[in-house]
Amino acid sequence: MAYDQNNIFARILRGDLPCKKAFENEHVLAFHDIRPLAPVHVLVIPKGAYTSLDDFHEKASEAEQAALMKAIGQVARQAGVAAGGYRVIANTGGDGHQEVPHLHFHVLGGRPLGRMIGRPE
Amino acid sequence: MAYDQNNIFARILRGDLPCKKAFENEHVLAFHDIRPLAPVHVLVIPKGAYTSLDDFHEKASEAEQAALMKAIGQVARQAGVAAGGYRVIANTGGDGHQEVPHLHFHVLGGRPLGRMIGRPE
Repeated sequence: MAYDQNNIFARILRGDLPCKKAFENEHVLAFHDIRPLAPVHVLVIPKGAYTSLDDFHEKASEAEQAALMKAIGQVARQAGVAAGGYRVIANTGGDGHQEVPHLHFHVLGGRPLGRMIGRPE
Repeated sequence: MAYDQNNIFARILRGDLPCKKAFENEHVLAFHDIRPLAPVHVLVIPKGAYTSLDDFHEKASEAEQAALMKAIGQVARQAGVAAGGYRVIANTGGDGHQEVPHLHFHVLGGRPLGRMIGRPE
């Protein structure tokens, strides 16, 4: 899938759309989801133009891959959910119900999140 | 939280317990979940003794962090779910409902996985 330069996260990265920033470094931007599913719901994205985790794992540099992984933990700490616990989710493609075609990790916390999808409570 | 050397994934890494291996390299082991929530359900873990993503992001080397990120995508490709799509989940601590105290990423695919927790279908 070719990268869509006009997806909503590309526009946020360009500064064409605003975001409530949670974290930023050379390789990563994190911002609060506008439709939060939990008291803390931050999206962590690479600054590079990667459609999905499948695209990213193949093409991103080691530095970019490490930076994204590390940033997820940093975001959780800064958001105050590291002690209580949190969930990290990345959806890829159709079966994964990916909604924006720029790789993003959801960081959710601030309430008990229950068991994962597919397994009854 | 101190690392528990007798958690089930530590025992798999030591070879004390069997697993159905999906992928392995210097830094990472991946194996099939014994209670799968989807046709493909693989667990991707670092070989180092890291309790959670919070622990890992702070203590792991750049090489380990990049290797874990990259392995998730590799596992999805090898399992045949990259084209159809998949979901990656890491649960941390109490609110995240983490069940084994060794960092693990779930890679789920092979069927439509629905929307994420907390948002109605």
